[in-house]
Amino acid sequence: MKQDLDRLMAERNLDAIVVEGPDGLDSANPDFNYMTNGVHLTGTVIKKRGEPPMIVYRTMERQQAAETGLVMVAYDRWNMREIRQRTASNFEAQVEHRRRMFADLGIAGRVGIYGTVKAGPYFAVMAALAQQVPNLEIVAEFENDLFSAARLTKDADEVERMRVVGRKTCEVVQAVVDFIGGGSARDELVFDAAGQPITIGRVRALIGREIAARGLETPYGTIFAQGRDAGMPHAEGDDAAQLRLGQAIVFDIFPREVGGFYHDMTRTFAIGYAPPELQRAYDEVLGAFEQVMGELEAGAPTKPYQDMVCQFFEARGHETIGSKSPIEEGYVHGLGHGVGLEIHEDFGFPSGADRGDVMLPGAVFTVEPGLYYPSQGYGVRLEDTIYCTPDGEFENLTPFPKQLVIPIARS
Amino acid sequence: MKQDLDRLMAERNLDAIVVEGPDGLDSANPDFNYMTNGVHLTGTVIKKRGEPPMIVYRTMERQQAAETGLVMVAYDRWNMREIRQRTASNFEAQVEHRRRMFADLGIAGRVGIYGTVKAGPYFAVMAALAQQVPNLEIVAEFENDLFSAARLTKDADEVERMRVVGRKTCEVVQAVVDFIGGGSARDELVFDAAGQPITIGRVRALIGREIAARGLETPYGTIFAQGRDAGMPHAEGDDAAQLRLGQAIVFDIFPREVGGFYHDMTRTFAIGYAPPELQRAYDEVLGAFEQVMGELEAGAPTKPYQDMVCQFFEARGHETIGSKSPIEEGYVHGLGHGVGLEIHEDFGFPSGADRGDVMLPGAVFTVEPGLYYPSQGYGVRLEDTIYCTPDGEFENLTPFPKQLVIPIARS
Repeated sequence: MKQDLDRLMAERNLDAIVVEGPDGLDSANPDFNYMTNGVHLTGTVIKKRGEPPMIVYRTMERQQAAETGLVMVAYDRWNMREIRQRTASNFEAQVEHRRRMFADLGIAGRVGIYGTVKAGPYFAVMAALAQQVPNLEIVAEFENDLFSAARLTKDADEVERMRVVGRKTCEVVQAVVDFIGGGSARDELVFDAAGQPITIGRVRALIGREIAARGLETPYGTIFAQGRDAGMPHAEGDDAAQLRLGQAIVFDIFPREVGGFYHDMTRTFAIGYAPPELQRAYDEVLGAFEQVMGELEAGAPTKPYQDMVCQFFEARGHETIGSKSPIEEGYVHGLGHGVGLEIHEDFGFPSGADRGDVMLPGAVFTVEPGLYYPSQGYGVRLEDTIYCTPDGEFENLTPFPKQLVIPIARS
Repeated sequence: MKQDLDRLMAERNLDAIVVEGPDGLDSANPDFNYMTNGVHLTGTVIKKRGEPPMIVYRTMERQQAAETGLVMVAYDRWNMREIRQRTASNFEAQVEHRRRMFADLGIAGRVGIYGTVKAGPYFAVMAALAQQVPNLEIVAEFENDLFSAARLTKDADEVERMRVVGRKTCEVVQAVVDFIGGGSARDELVFDAAGQPITIGRVRALIGREIAARGLETPYGTIFAQGRDAGMPHAEGDDAAQLRLGQAIVFDIFPREVGGFYHDMTRTFAIGYAPPELQRAYDEVLGAFEQVMGELEAGAPTKPYQDMVCQFFEARGHETIGSKSPIEEGYVHGLGHGVGLEIHEDFGFPSGADRGDVMLPGAVFTVEPGLYYPSQGYGVRLEDTIYCTPDGEFENLTPFPKQLVIPIARS
């Protein structure tokens, strides 16, 4: 939570942090947006340990800067025109502007750098700055960084917003199930009530309308993948394909508040009936899901849950990423990830090396076991978003049943 | 254009380029999306001079990788699990993975870095890599970089897409004008045909519907700012405010194809009538616009056009950024900017130091003079998107008239 920032800075022995907010990144800069309280502007957030954060803003955006509630510092306090006249290039001027900014604001010592940037310009400026300023140590965290740690745990207001997004997401999924289930089947193909073919493209358009009607957005689209595509975890689905009976459909939907918090859920469906091998895989994935949910414990390391699911699946004859990597069929990914201002936050149940993640009260994360057999034309994934409450209970933010078959009339 | 990449690499003496595509950035990573031909995935594009570009992709996204049309290189070719067992941390493993990748693919010498990244992890990995690999020189370009240069000029297909976005944007503006003009006024306030107040919020909702109906999106919203807000270039407008007669309304709209090319246009309107000082400012802004359009010339440096507009306004008694900085009233910004996969591309008519920009055939850019007087409750901006054709002519991609007053009935 935001209130943890000073403690987290102390743990990392950071004297200050700099969070970059370059032009044009919008919601792709979650650490910056987190600090600006969701206000989108171009600028830099600077915070010294034990002091309130400042926003260095451009004159044209002083109104947005005021909305952040941060201490306001005008970029023009260091006159770029005057600096440019004393330097040989725009690059040198930019470095000098920042040097003066750091000097005047007292930014020195161990300074952590955060935010989303363009690789070249940022690397150029910070490398030059580090060379020029003797008492400045640029601290570039690689993982489990300050903001991952702060943002991992959500405060009460944030969780309430995430609950609402979860409920709305379930409504969208229900609308899709109702639309499909209200149709009819002929020759293994699915038609709507008016007799028109239901294609994945039509379902996707419906999803788009239902999402927009609830004030949500889906910057990364939605996975609605049938048959072989369902066997490939990131395949989005073929809009031209018509829905067919008895095919695995992986429906993974991850909308968010406009520019805000995400929800992430997946259901696997089969229309009309499920072939035995698909039903068996579904039951096994559901079994893995329920075993994990039954054993979640606040304070526990997360890596053992991934290992548990690998063992669960291997005991049932599936290959898993726990003992084979790279892997294309079986259980091929991690068990889940943090969710918040990003769809994938820097926390989870890793398939690779343990990073030391521990289940903290306040964490919001997914649990999403799956089995993938593209060569056999199917895949299964089930995913809910889960909240670890302050008193160490687990609240499921995805109130939607798990049932494989969508019944449908035959015409 | 993309076909210029090898030439531009030669000019910069670059042996290779690396374009980063980390998870979760989507359209906020235009250089990467440019190289992947618009396919969104997590990966790294690598290109040696004179050779076709490669995409280093994750197994889960091999289908998206195939859609890029690039040479496919699996991330798993360098086995991260095995590397991790030999290294002391995930960080060292990441550096070692990349070291092996560069060695095997022959990436050495002067290597340019591009793409959007998270500052900390990227700075950490590349600094370590540069230390470990003796024949590797990381080239971090600051401005006028390889991709700015390539993307500045659009090929025929790209321009045709931008023309379509321009026409659709004008249709949206026309729909808004028709909606307002179809209403009526009472006590200086504007009502719709049904007698309901027209607020900025209602206009914004209409804009959203009209944009969505044309398959466009507006990731950064729309400026529809009335009165004092119109005097602040980046104020978005107050949704609760009702439209009033005789107020300046700055309507700046910048939609794009979903995940693709932007258009950028601004009109300033006054409903019913325009007070004399607003009409005068409007005429002066239009005069500046037309003077610039009349003098645009392929091959010319761009900075003199900004100077020309400053002189034009100063001769009419306005302060400008040409002789005062920082500045809050008068002409306070640059004359325009490149437009493409980003709304602000790295080219323009700078208000600050000359960067050496030259008007190239193929460039698409805005011309947008403005005058801002928030203390007097108004502002004016006019903006079209312009294309410099291969034969050095100038095509206006914003076919919409410039007329200040929207006539309205009084009830």
